Amino acid sequence: MGWENNVRRVVPYVPGEQPKKADVIKLNTNENPYPPSLEAEKAAASMSTDELRLYPDPSAESLVRAIAGCYGLKENEVFVGVGSDDVLAMCFMTFFNSGKPIVFPDITYSFYDVWADLLRIPYKTPPLTEDFRINPADYRGENGGIVFPNPNAPTGSFLPMESVEEIVAANRESVVIVDEAYVDFGAESALPLIRKYDNLIVVQTFSKSRSMAGLRIGYAMADEKLIRYLNDVKYSFNSYTLNRPSILIGTAEMNSREHFKECCARIAKTREASAARFRGLGFSLTDSCANFLFVTHPDKTAKEIFDYLKENRIYVRWFDKPRIRNYLRVTIGTDQEMDRLFACLSELF
Amino acid sequence: MGWENNVRRVVPYVPGEQPKKADVIKLNTNENPYPPSLEAEKAAASMSTDELRLYPDPSAESLVRAIAGCYGLKENEVFVGVGSDDVLAMCFMTFFNSGKPIVFPDITYSFYDVWADLLRIPYKTPPLTEDFRINPADYRGENGGIVFPNPNAPTGSFLPMESVEEIVAANRESVVIVDEAYVDFGAESALPLIRKYDNLIVVQTFSKSRSMAGLRIGYAMADEKLIRYLNDVKYSFNSYTLNRPSILIGTAEMNSREHFKECCARIAKTREASAARFRGLGFSLTDSCANFLFVTHPDKTAKEIFDYLKENRIYVRWFDKPRIRNYLRVTIGTDQEMDRLFACLSELF
Repeated sequence: MGWENNVRRVVPYVPGEQPKKADVIKLNTNENPYPPSLEAEKAAASMSTDELRLYPDPSAESLVRAIAGCYGLKENEVFVGVGSDDVLAMCFMTFFNSGKPIVFPDITYSFYDVWADLLRIPYKTPPLTEDFRINPADYRGENGGIVFPNPNAPTGSFLPMESVEEIVAANRESVVIVDEAYVDFGAESALPLIRKYDNLIVVQTFSKSRSMAGLRIGYAMADEKLIRYLNDVKYSFNSYTLNRPSILIGTAEMNSREHFKECCARIAKTREASAARFRGLGFSLTDSCANFLFVTHPDKTAKEIFDYLKENRIYVRWFDKPRIRNYLRVTIGTDQEMDRLFACLSELF
Repeated sequence: MGWENNVRRVVPYVPGEQPKKADVIKLNTNENPYPPSLEAEKAAASMSTDELRLYPDPSAESLVRAIAGCYGLKENEVFVGVGSDDVLAMCFMTFFNSGKPIVFPDITYSFYDVWADLLRIPYKTPPLTEDFRINPADYRGENGGIVFPNPNAPTGSFLPMESVEEIVAANRESVVIVDEAYVDFGAESALPLIRKYDNLIVVQTFSKSRSMAGLRIGYAMADEKLIRYLNDVKYSFNSYTLNRPSILIGTAEMNSREHFKECCARIAKTREASAARFRGLGFSLTDSCANFLFVTHPDKTAKEIFDYLKENRIYVRWFDKPRIRNYLRVTIGTDQEMDRLFACLSELF
């Protein structure tokens, strides 16, 4: 039919598998192995079903206030969305309209090129160095915007703050997005730089460090002018996005800081122990600051190890992509889950 | 700064006011005055906070299955999103890419022109007839797509099915979206036509008839090919949109059919009684099939009445737009709420 000629055709992003079987060890989508805080649980229990008949607060005021409070910001320096994917998609739509190519690393979060294709934004992807690091020198010269995760995904490598600032400062004519989905597991945030640079957006999420992937909450922090532009586009796309449970439970979680810190510290500790165990089995690893490790083995292909683990009901993530085809991304689970992983791997190596 | 030149600038949609005061009678955003079903309440109570750490099912399978089951469709004929606004925005993005103008009425849901502007889609808005009806003859000739609500908003007027079919049949080269947010309050759905026309999309929502504006769930029903294209774009924009509470509670609500029917019937009955009371006070009304009435009075301007009611803590909706500036859209509340509305109006007229 004629209408098919006008369809926006895309190669969609493929999310990590969400196995419906029980008894699976799920180390494939970087979820937090620990539940949300008691405060979040209490908020969930207090939810009124009757109130579901009413629209949520479109400005998600209580949640925005909690985030602002946690980071010492003004409320108009915070934007919230349905996971950091929604926040990033809105940022692409709002700020990447120059017609010039935007820039992100060749190996990075696999949604960036999908959004760029969807929104018809040209892009350049300077390769990471041999050891999978961002070279700030690649992020100079005319461009339509810059985006990179820090720590990077799926490598876990952290770009030091002076290099981040170097990139932001060298690109005052573009918006620079630092996607900090994994920052809470031991890296440093670029947040203090938003007061110095009105072209910087820092994006974070409740899905990893805050144990709430199931609620879908992400947020951006930036100069109030950037936030205002973002909100204008957001209100033109969908006014009521965060639903009542997200606002209610997310607010409680953001206000409960101890549990969050404890869980992050525990995950970082398990990560370091797991890195040592991987090395003990002959794996090579990047230096990860995230809640996952990025590992490769000289004797078996990543695909072989991936399939072997899956047969044993352990799910990790394998990307069939150039340069990283022989790596696996392994989410840090509980100590018990990691014990089962290494018990299983020990039979292979 | 230079980056500001490349911002996507928009005039954002302004949602109806969400008063934070208590003791307000809220007849301004077409919410359902009755709570969701007991089944939904049970599902909400059964929600595990622990599981919030895990991503939701990106395909929202249980919810899609419940909707398909309710309407006698296959699962691949159903698409779900974060409210019908998300579903409609995805439809615009997916199907309205020809460069030719899309067509919708001059008086209609006020988000259509906002999405068109945001996505740089040209559009034409043929005027409704003098008595606010769609004239099918205006929806002929080359176009980039068609969208209209049925019943229309904010008029409540229903376009009979033969006229809907006439429009769909006359536009086999375009995608035609029938936005049925208000269909359950006494109108007829175009759903049976999706088997005959592969260019028709029927969009509905949980926000009105299903008492769940606070959860944000909308859905599209269409030929499986249209749904596949929609899902491709959706997965390229944000893979995990519906959160765990929405999928869990929405599934339960969709599976509980009696409560829904009862509430819709009760609202339709209150609407008819309220229409008579409005007429008794000298108002003129459109013939509304929705959960609201669209009213005007010869003696006072709509703005005067709006302000008067607001002072008395009764919120209705007034649109400061050509042709309808002298009308108010009044959501049907409970009988008690309508009693208070008419008691208040009686003091004015």
